Amino acid sequence: MATKHILLGHGSGGRLMHNFIKEALLQKLGNPILNRLTDSAVLNYKEKIAFTTDSFVVNPLIFPGGDIGKLAVTGTVNDLVMLGAEPEYLSLGLIMEEGLGQKILGRIIDSVSIYARAAGVYIVTGDTKVVEKGAADKLFINTSGIGRLVTRTELSLKNISCGDKIIITGNIAEHGLAVLAKRKELDLGLRIKSDCQALNGLLIPLLKKSRGIKFMRDPTRGGLATTLNEIAEGSGLGIVIEEKNIPLSGKVKAACELLGIDPLYVANEGKAVLVVKAEEAAKIIRFLHKHPLGRNAKIIGTLVKRPRARLLLRTIFNTERILDMLTSEPLPRIC
Amino acid sequence: MATKHILLGHGSGGRLMHNFIKEALLQKLGNPILNRLTDSAVLNYKEKIAFTTDSFVVNPLIFPGGDIGKLAVTGTVNDLVMLGAEPEYLSLGLIMEEGLGQKILGRIIDSVSIYARAAGVYIVTGDTKVVEKGAADKLFINTSGIGRLVTRTELSLKNISCGDKIIITGNIAEHGLAVLAKRKELDLGLRIKSDCQALNGLLIPLLKKSRGIKFMRDPTRGGLATTLNEIAEGSGLGIVIEEKNIPLSGKVKAACELLGIDPLYVANEGKAVLVVKAEEAAKIIRFLHKHPLGRNAKIIGTLVKRPRARLLLRTIFNTERILDMLTSEPLPRIC
Repeated sequence: MATKHILLGHGSGGRLMHNFIKEALLQKLGNPILNRLTDSAVLNYKEKIAFTTDSFVVNPLIFPGGDIGKLAVTGTVNDLVMLGAEPEYLSLGLIMEEGLGQKILGRIIDSVSIYARAAGVYIVTGDTKVVEKGAADKLFINTSGIGRLVTRTELSLKNISCGDKIIITGNIAEHGLAVLAKRKELDLGLRIKSDCQALNGLLIPLLKKSRGIKFMRDPTRGGLATTLNEIAEGSGLGIVIEEKNIPLSGKVKAACELLGIDPLYVANEGKAVLVVKAEEAAKIIRFLHKHPLGRNAKIIGTLVKRPRARLLLRTIFNTERILDMLTSEPLPRIC
Repeated sequence: MATKHILLGHGSGGRLMHNFIKEALLQKLGNPILNRLTDSAVLNYKEKIAFTTDSFVVNPLIFPGGDIGKLAVTGTVNDLVMLGAEPEYLSLGLIMEEGLGQKILGRIIDSVSIYARAAGVYIVTGDTKVVEKGAADKLFINTSGIGRLVTRTELSLKNISCGDKIIITGNIAEHGLAVLAKRKELDLGLRIKSDCQALNGLLIPLLKKSRGIKFMRDPTRGGLATTLNEIAEGSGLGIVIEEKNIPLSGKVKAACELLGIDPLYVANEGKAVLVVKAEEAAKIIRFLHKHPLGRNAKIIGTLVKRPRARLLLRTIFNTERILDMLTSEPLPRIC
């Protein structure tokens, strides 16, 4: 499915991007660490150190519930957390378009500062580039991050086995909808806010306490369905999820129905998917419910033998259907 | 000098960028590590680890002597080396414009692969974003890097004292001129190539061997004069450089004269400025001369008491003049 040119879908988080990464990047750049395709890399220093990078191109720069600065900090923090690392240090790379307003930039840097402090991370190195008007759309941010692993064993797809449970830490689809509504000036009267939040406060204590967590990933671009497909493909096992258990606010449900969008494919920026030992699942849910960012956490599915490497949705009507990764790009520049 | 909008000069590496970093970024994001404004941050893990980030927006993507992929890898490797760290791991963040040719992208990824291998570093984590046509100019790359410090004591401006010598590891101004000539289709018949090269092979062995090196910085954006100004300001001492000792190829000299450009302000991508103990300078020069990337290394100046925090050029006519940092932006998107 190689195309002659780069398409928006190559950045979607979905199927086209996965193939592109495998064909265009891994073949040339692959090594045992990169090949894992986790959110962060784990480096074998005297301590185990996680390292991650993210570029942010969200449009608009400011949206209900956040802005590109908050998104960059929390997104990079979350990528470290997903690998079981306590986020400690971030870099900040700015690519600015000539003519960008200092006022909006100031507001965004304020956000970086506020949310870095809130998450307990330091911006320790940075880079500033300016391109001429028209050569970039206002502002792109890259944040890379470093942190120490807090888990004794690495979180890995290899740990997953049949019968494990899938947990989502809260309501889905809020980030993507908030950005879309703002971009299209679709108010819908619903005032949906992005869920953009750093998850270290919720998940690092859980990781330190529980040994039941096998794997975590944040369902950003491509949404919950794409992340679960990655887990199914990576583990070689199937996943069955129950539609009735997937936490979704009434507002988001209404907006998705109005707009004809499947919330399972909409980006989240403050949620995690956890694969956990079945016997620990209830205890983990109780732990999550005590934290404001986890109070809607739910067990939504189970790892199964068949269908191999696929995701099956059991609908509220008790029918079943296969959900693939996102293939097209319904919402470019969502993060 | 706060402006209402971001100007090209905010990314120049010169005075405007320095003020912007201090006023708009450090005031809000500052902490003891970031405040040092070194090329990399040093993190106190059980081993001392350097961490750096760089975004690359060079136009055109391919230029004589390199391309944006080679530039990203070598630039980030060099930033780690400047702090005395052995480069080990890089991240790779791609921001691609919809419609970017897969062929040119493939060539650039090949470069990343080739020059990462040559420098002995691994790409261990990455990120891919695509923006719609017109929202970016073809391709921007962010590379962040990590490596272990090899020096017993940290290289720091604080180590510098009066009488120390300034060394440049080779001919200046080649990168900026090569990019400019390509962009403007000014061949000049001179075939100037970028000096874009990783310096770990030249400088890490030197750092391990010599204790005479107090500080290093690569004179990229803003050129040699801007880097020396940073050293003068940071140390509070003056620097006197001898124009006749500054290594410059005949071709570059001719091109600069033709174009009316001062080579002291033109970006380099494969050179380092070393501040060294006077009594070690000759030995260090001998060491550098043995390596292909150091064979034109020269002692070009001395740290002095006065003028405080300024850079003085003693010209070939034996006159003196103060050189400030770059203030405008003669060559945007040079890296």
